Amino acid sequence: MILERKIPIGYILGKIKIDLLVVVVFSTATSLLSSYLQDLNIPVTIGAFLGTAIALILSFKLSQSYDRWWEARKIWGAIVNDSRTFVLQLKHFSKNPESALISRMAYRQMSWCYALGANLRGLKINTEEDPFLEELERQLLKDRIHIPLALLDNHSADLNTLHREDQLNDFQQVQIDSTLLRLCASMGKAERIKNTSFPKTYRLTLHLFIYIFLVMLSFSLTELTGFIEIPLLVFISVPFFLLEKIALNIQDPFENRPTDTAMTSIARTIERNIRELLKEEDIPEPLKPEKFYMQ
Amino acid sequence: MILERKIPIGYILGKIKIDLLVVVVFSTATSLLSSYLQDLNIPVTIGAFLGTAIALILSFKLSQSYDRWWEARKIWGAIVNDSRTFVLQLKHFSKNPESALISRMAYRQMSWCYALGANLRGLKINTEEDPFLEELERQLLKDRIHIPLALLDNHSADLNTLHREDQLNDFQQVQIDSTLLRLCASMGKAERIKNTSFPKTYRLTLHLFIYIFLVMLSFSLTELTGFIEIPLLVFISVPFFLLEKIALNIQDPFENRPTDTAMTSIARTIERNIRELLKEEDIPEPLKPEKFYMQ
Amino acid sequence: MILERKIPIGYILGKIKIDLLVVVVFSTATSLLSSYLQDLNIPVTIGAFLGTAIALILSFKLSQSYDRWWEARKIWGAIVNDSRTFVLQLKHFSKNPESALISRMAYRQMSWCYALGANLRGLKINTEEDPFLEELERQLLKDRIHIPLALLDNHSADLNTLHREDQLNDFQQVQIDSTLLRLCASMGKAERIKNTSFPKTYRLTLHLFIYIFLVMLSFSLTELTGFIEIPLLVFISVPFFLLEKIALNIQDPFENRPTDTAMTSIARTIERNIRELLKEEDIPEPLKPEKFYMQ
Amino acid sequence: MILERKIPIGYILGKIKIDLLVVVVFSTATSLLSSYLQDLNIPVTIGAFLGTAIALILSFKLSQSYDRWWEARKIWGAIVNDSRTFVLQLKHFSKNPESALISRMAYRQMSWCYALGANLRGLKINTEEDPFLEELERQLLKDRIHIPLALLDNHSADLNTLHREDQLNDFQQVQIDSTLLRLCASMGKAERIKNTSFPKTYRLTLHLFIYIFLVMLSFSLTELTGFIEIPLLVFISVPFFLLEKIALNIQDPFENRPTDTAMTSIARTIERNIRELLKEEDIPEPLKPEKFYMQ
Amino acid sequence: MILERKIPIGYILGKIKIDLLVVVVFSTATSLLSSYLQDLNIPVTIGAFLGTAIALILSFKLSQSYDRWWEARKIWGAIVNDSRTFVLQLKHFSKNPESALISRMAYRQMSWCYALGANLRGLKINTEEDPFLEELERQLLKDRIHIPLALLDNHSADLNTLHREDQLNDFQQVQIDSTLLRLCASMGKAERIKNTSFPKTYRLTLHLFIYIFLVMLSFSLTELTGFIEIPLLVFISVPFFLLEKIALNIQDPFENRPTDTAMTSIARTIERNIRELLKEEDIPEPLKPEKFYMQ
Repeated sequence: MILERKIPIGYILGKIKIDLLVVVVFSTATSLLSSYLQDLNIPVTIGAFLGTAIALILSFKLSQSYDRWWEARKIWGAIVNDSRTFVLQLKHFSKNPESALISRMAYRQMSWCYALGANLRGLKINTEEDPFLEELERQLLKDRIHIPLALLDNHSADLNTLHREDQLNDFQQVQIDSTLLRLCASMGKAERIKNTSFPKTYRLTLHLFIYIFLVMLSFSLTELTGFIEIPLLVFISVPFFLLEKIALNIQDPFENRPTDTAMTSIARTIERNIRELLKEEDIPEPLKPEKFYMQ
Repeated sequence: MILERKIPIGYILGKIKIDLLVVVVFSTATSLLSSYLQDLNIPVTIGAFLGTAIALILSFKLSQSYDRWWEARKIWGAIVNDSRTFVLQLKHFSKNPESALISRMAYRQMSWCYALGANLRGLKINTEEDPFLEELERQLLKDRIHIPLALLDNHSADLNTLHREDQLNDFQQVQIDSTLLRLCASMGKAERIKNTSFPKTYRLTLHLFIYIFLVMLSFSLTELTGFIEIPLLVFISVPFFLLEKIALNIQDPFENRPTDTAMTSIARTIERNIRELLKEEDIPEPLKPEKFYMQ
Repeated sequence: MILERKIPIGYILGKIKIDLLVVVVFSTATSLLSSYLQDLNIPVTIGAFLGTAIALILSFKLSQSYDRWWEARKIWGAIVNDSRTFVLQLKHFSKNPESALISRMAYRQMSWCYALGANLRGLKINTEEDPFLEELERQLLKDRIHIPLALLDNHSADLNTLHREDQLNDFQQVQIDSTLLRLCASMGKAERIKNTSFPKTYRLTLHLFIYIFLVMLSFSLTELTGFIEIPLLVFISVPFFLLEKIALNIQDPFENRPTDTAMTSIARTIERNIRELLKEEDIPEPLKPEKFYMQ
Repeated sequence: MILERKIPIGYILGKIKIDLLVVVVFSTATSLLSSYLQDLNIPVTIGAFLGTAIALILSFKLSQSYDRWWEARKIWGAIVNDSRTFVLQLKHFSKNPESALISRMAYRQMSWCYALGANLRGLKINTEEDPFLEELERQLLKDRIHIPLALLDNHSADLNTLHREDQLNDFQQVQIDSTLLRLCASMGKAERIKNTSFPKTYRLTLHLFIYIFLVMLSFSLTELTGFIEIPLLVFISVPFFLLEKIALNIQDPFENRPTDTAMTSIARTIERNIRELLKEEDIPEPLKPEKFYMQ
Repeated sequence: MILERKIPIGYILGKIKIDLLVVVVFSTATSLLSSYLQDLNIPVTIGAFLGTAIALILSFKLSQSYDRWWEARKIWGAIVNDSRTFVLQLKHFSKNPESALISRMAYRQMSWCYALGANLRGLKINTEEDPFLEELERQLLKDRIHIPLALLDNHSADLNTLHREDQLNDFQQVQIDSTLLRLCASMGKAERIKNTSFPKTYRLTLHLFIYIFLVMLSFSLTELTGFIEIPLLVFISVPFFLLEKIALNIQDPFENRPTDTAMTSIARTIERNIRELLKEEDIPEPLKPEKFYMQ
C-alpha cells in the first residue's frame, strides 16, 4: 500500500518513461512530416473528441481496477475480523480456555494469515521454520501443496477434538465452524482476484486507443511550431499514461509490489491482536513501512 | 479466460474485419460522393459529439458486460469455497471420517463441478463414463435431465443417511445442508447468467449508433482528401468496434469460447484440493492453458 | 425477455414513430423559418454539447433501468434456487419422504411460482382451476386477496404439521422455515419493483431535455440546406429516442410486455425441476418462445 | 411517491422559478453589457465544455441521490417482508395460534409500521389513540422517547413470554428473534438515511458550478441578439436546474413531501396482509393517492 | 458531519486559497508572456477537452470518495442497530433481566461506542475515568493496547458467565454471540477505512491533471485581454479545486474534522437508546452541533 509519504518521482516516471519516449519520437516525426505534406492536417476537434472518449473509457477501467483493489482490501479486513472472532469464540466458549489446544489453534491462526499472504504473492512458504506451529505440525505440512488450506484442515480437526472432548457443545462447534467457513471463503475470494486476469483484450484496446488519440492529436496540432507541439503532446499524454499505469497496478493487488494490499502488515496486526487476547506480555511492534509503502 | 500471453493478432482482427470492411466501403463512397455534392459537407463538431456520446454509452455497456463476467467468476469462486468447506465439514463432523460414504460424497462433489461446467457450456455429459461416480449411481443418472441437480439430490440423500446412521448430529446435518444450499444457489446463479440474454434491442441500438456516428464523421471529413480520410476513419473506428466486441464476448461467459470463465481449470483446482484433503498421493497437475487462453 | 432472434423492425420503430414525426415537423419548420430570420442561427457547439450532456444523463438513466431489470431477474433466479432447495429439504429431511403431505407441498410450490408471476403481471388468478392444488385448498383460496401470500401461509401450516407429527426435528423445521422466509422476501422484492415507479419527474425532464437538444441542434444546422438537415436530425435523434424507450421498457419488467422477465418460462423450469426431483415420468417440455420473445 | 399521473406543471416549475428568474436577469445584463464592452466576448467552446462538465457531475450526484431513494424503498420493502414473516412464524410456530398474545403481537406490528413512518417524518405520534394497541400498552408508551424502539422492546418481551410459557421451543424463539433483529436493523437503516445529510459543500459547489457555467455561456453568446440569447439561456438552464432539484428531492425520502417513500401506503399494505393472515373479514381498502402522489 | 446550516465562506475558501493563488500567478504570467510570444497560442478546443476529461476523472474519484464516506456511515448505522439488538437480547433472553451483570454489559456497550470513536480518531482513551465502566474493569483495561477489542473480550467473557450460570440457554448464547460477532466486524470495517489510504498516485495524478488543464486553458485564452483572462481562469478553476478538496475530505471520515462521520453524536444516540431500554429516568440530551457541523 502506497503511504501518505513522499513518493520518489523516479518511481512514478519510471512507469511511463517508455511511453513518453514514443510520444516524443512520433510527435517529432509528425512535426517534420507536416512541413512537407500540408494535407495531413486534420481538424483539432477530432483529436479533442478522441481525448474525451479515451478519458471516459479510462475512467471506467480505473473504476473497475479500483473495485478489485478495494475488494482485496475488504477481504483482508474480513480476515482480521474473523481471526479476532475465532479467538474470542475459542477462548470464551471453551470450558477450559487455558488448554494447550486453544493456544495451538490461536497460534495456527497467526501462521495462517502469514502463509496466506505469502501464498498469494507466490512466495515459498517455509513451514519447517514457522515460529507459530508445533514441531509435529511443521513436519506434517511439509508434503502439503496448499498450505493455508492444510492449516484450515487442521483447525477443523482440532475443533472436532474440542467438541468430542466435550469442551464445546453442539451449538458452539457449529458457530465456530461458521467462522472457519468465512475464513475459507475469504481465502478463496483472494485467490479469485489473484488468479483472474483482467480481460487482456480490453486492456490492449485501451492502450491502442491512447496511441490512436495521441497520433490524431499530433496531426491536429501541426499548425503549431514543433518546439511547442512536442512538449504540448508530452504534457497532455502524461496524465493519460499515468492513469493507465495506476489502473494496471492496483488491479492486481497480490504481486509483491508497492501498490499491493499490505498483507504482511495486516498479518502483523492480527498477530498483535491475538497475542493481546491471549494476555501475552511481549507483543511485537507494528510493521515499519519500507520507504513510501507498506508491505 | 484470456491469459497474460501473446494473443494472435488474427484472433482480435477476425472479430471486427467485417465491420472494418463496411467502413472502408462507405468512407470511399462518401469521399467520391462529396466531390460532386458540396452540400453534403456537415460540421465536424457533429461527428465529434456523436463520437463522445457513443463512447459514453459504450462505456456503460462495457461496464454492464464486465459486471456479468465478474459475477460469473465470483459464482465459480463461491463454488470453490463451498466445495472445500463441504469436504472439510464432512471429514471433521463425521464420527467415522474414513467411511466409504464420505469418500463417495467427496468424489461426487468433483463430478458435480465438471458436470456443471459442461452443462452451462451446453456440452453433453456422459455420466456413464464419469470416473468420479460409482457404477450404480452412473446407471441411475442415465435418465435424469438435469445432471447437476440430480447429483445435489444424491448429496442430500447421502447427508440424510449420515444423519440417520448417527454419524452427524442434528446441528451438523443442518450446517452441511446450508453448504449444499449455497452450492444449489451458485448453480442457479450461473444458469441465470447463461439463460438471460443481454437486452438485444439495447445492443442493436448501440451497433446502429456506432454506424450513424461513423457515417456522420465521414461526411464531416470530406474536406480532407480521400487517401487521408479513409485510413483516418478506419483507425478511429477500430477501438469502437473492438470495445463493442469485447463487451459482447465477456457478457456471455459460458459459451465455450476463449473469453469464457475458466470452468474446467477451476474444476481441476477443486479436484486437486479435495484429493489433497482426502490425503491422496496421486494428485493430478493443474490444467495446462490452450495457446492464449484457459478453458 | 427479448431473445437472440430476429426482432421485427416494426416492433422497434413502432416505439419511436411519434417522436420521429415530431422531429420531422419541427426540423422542417426550422429549415423554413431560418430562411427568413438569419438571426436564429446559433453556434453548432451549443447543439453538440447539449447532445453530449443528454447522452450522459441518458446513460445513467439506462444504467438505473438496467439495474431494475437485472434485479428482477436475480429475484426470479433466487426463486428458482429456493424452490429447488425447498423440495430437496422436504424430501431428504422428512422421515417419510413419500408422504402425501410432502408431495402436496411440492405441488403447491409450482402453483406459487405461476401465481406470483400472474399476480405481478396484474392478471387474474383462477385458483379454482389450478391443476397443482387439491380441491379443498382451491376452495379455501377463493376468498383470499393475496393468493401467493395465502399459499405461503399454507406452506407454513403444513411445515408445522410435519414438525408436530415428528417427521421433522426442531432443527429441520427452522432450516426449512428459513427457505420459506427467503421465498417470502423474493416475493416482496418483486412487488417492490412492480409498485415503485421510477421517479416520473426525472423521466419527464430527460424527455424534455432530448427535445431541447434537438431543437437547438436544428437551429445550429440552418446553414445546411433543408433536404440535408431534416434527415440528418432524424438520424441523429433515432438512437437517443431508442435508448430512452429501451430504458423505459426494461425498468418495469412485470408488465406483460415482450421485455418482461420471462416469468412463465422460469415457472415452467421450476415445475420441470420439481417433477424430476419427485421422480415423475411425464415431465412437460420447456416453454416455447412466442416469435422473438419469451413470456 | 410521484405516481404515473399528470403532474401539475406548477408543481414542477415552482421548484425552479427563482433560479430561472436569476438567469433572465443576468442574461439580460450580459446582453446589454456586451454592447458596450466588446472584450467580454469569450469563446463558445468554454461555455460548452463547462456544460458538459456540469452535466457529468450532476449525473453522478443524481445517481447518488437515486441510490439513497432506492435504498429507502428497499428498506421499506424489507419491512414488508419481515412483517409478513413475523406473523407467519408466530402463527405457525406457536402451539396455540389463536391466543390473545399472538394477536396482540400481530396488531403491534401494524402499529410499529405506522409509528416508524411518522417518526421518520418527524410527526408527533399519538400513542394514546393508537387503534392497534391495548389500553395498558398505550399508557406505558406515553413516557417513552423512541416509540418504535419501545414497541420492539415489547415485542421482544412478549416473545420471551411465549417461550417461557412453552408455546415456542428454543429454536423457534431464536428464529423469531432473528426476524425482530432484521426489523430493528431496517429501522436503524431508515434513520441513517434520515439523519445523514448529503455533504452540503458538495451540493453547494454543484449549484455554484451551474451558475458559473450559465454566466460563461451568456458571455459566449453575446454575438447573438438579446431576444435570442435570453430565451436560449433559459431553455438550456431548465433541464440543469430541474435535474438538480430532482436530485435534491429524492435524496431525502422521509420529509413529508410528494417525492417521499410512500410509507403510509406501505404500512397500509402491511396492515391488509396481516389482517388477511389473521383471517379477518373486514380488511381496509388500499390507501388512495393524493392527486399525483402517494403518501 | 456538515449540517444543513450556514457554512462560513472562510471555511470553504480556506481549503483552496493556495491553489487559487497559483492560478492567479501563472495566468498573469501567461497573459504577459503571450504578448511577446505569439506562437504560444494553442487552440481553445485543447483546453476544453482537457476540462471535460478532468471533470470525468474527478467525478469518478468523487464517487469513490463518496462511497467510502457512505460506507463509514453505514458501518456506524450497523453499530446503532447491533447495540440496540444486543441490549434487547440480553434483557429478554435472560432469566434474570434485572441482574447487575446485564446492566454492566449494557453500560459497557455505551463505553465501547465512545471508545471506538475515539480510537478511530486517534484520540487517547482515558479508561480510568470512563463513567460507564466499573472500577475493576477500568484498572484492568489500563495496560491493554486495543481498548475496544478488550471491551469485546470482556463482553464475550460475561456472555459465557451468563451461559454458565444458566441464565441463557445454548441457543441464546450463540444468538447473542452472533450480535457480538457483527459488532466486531463493524469495528474492523471502520478500521479498514481508517487504515487504507486512497491510492496516493491516483490522487496526485488528478491534481497534476487539473494543473495541466488550467495551464493549457490559459494558453488557449491568450487572445482575450488579461483583465478578462485572469478572473475567467480563476472562476473556472474554483469548482474543480473545490470538488477535488471535497473528495479529499470525505474519503477519510475518521480524522477529527468537520466532515467526519458524526461518531460522538451517534454514540450519544446509542447511549440514549440503551438508557431508555434500561428504563432509566435521566436520559441525557442529544449532542448539540458545533457551529456548522456535528462531531
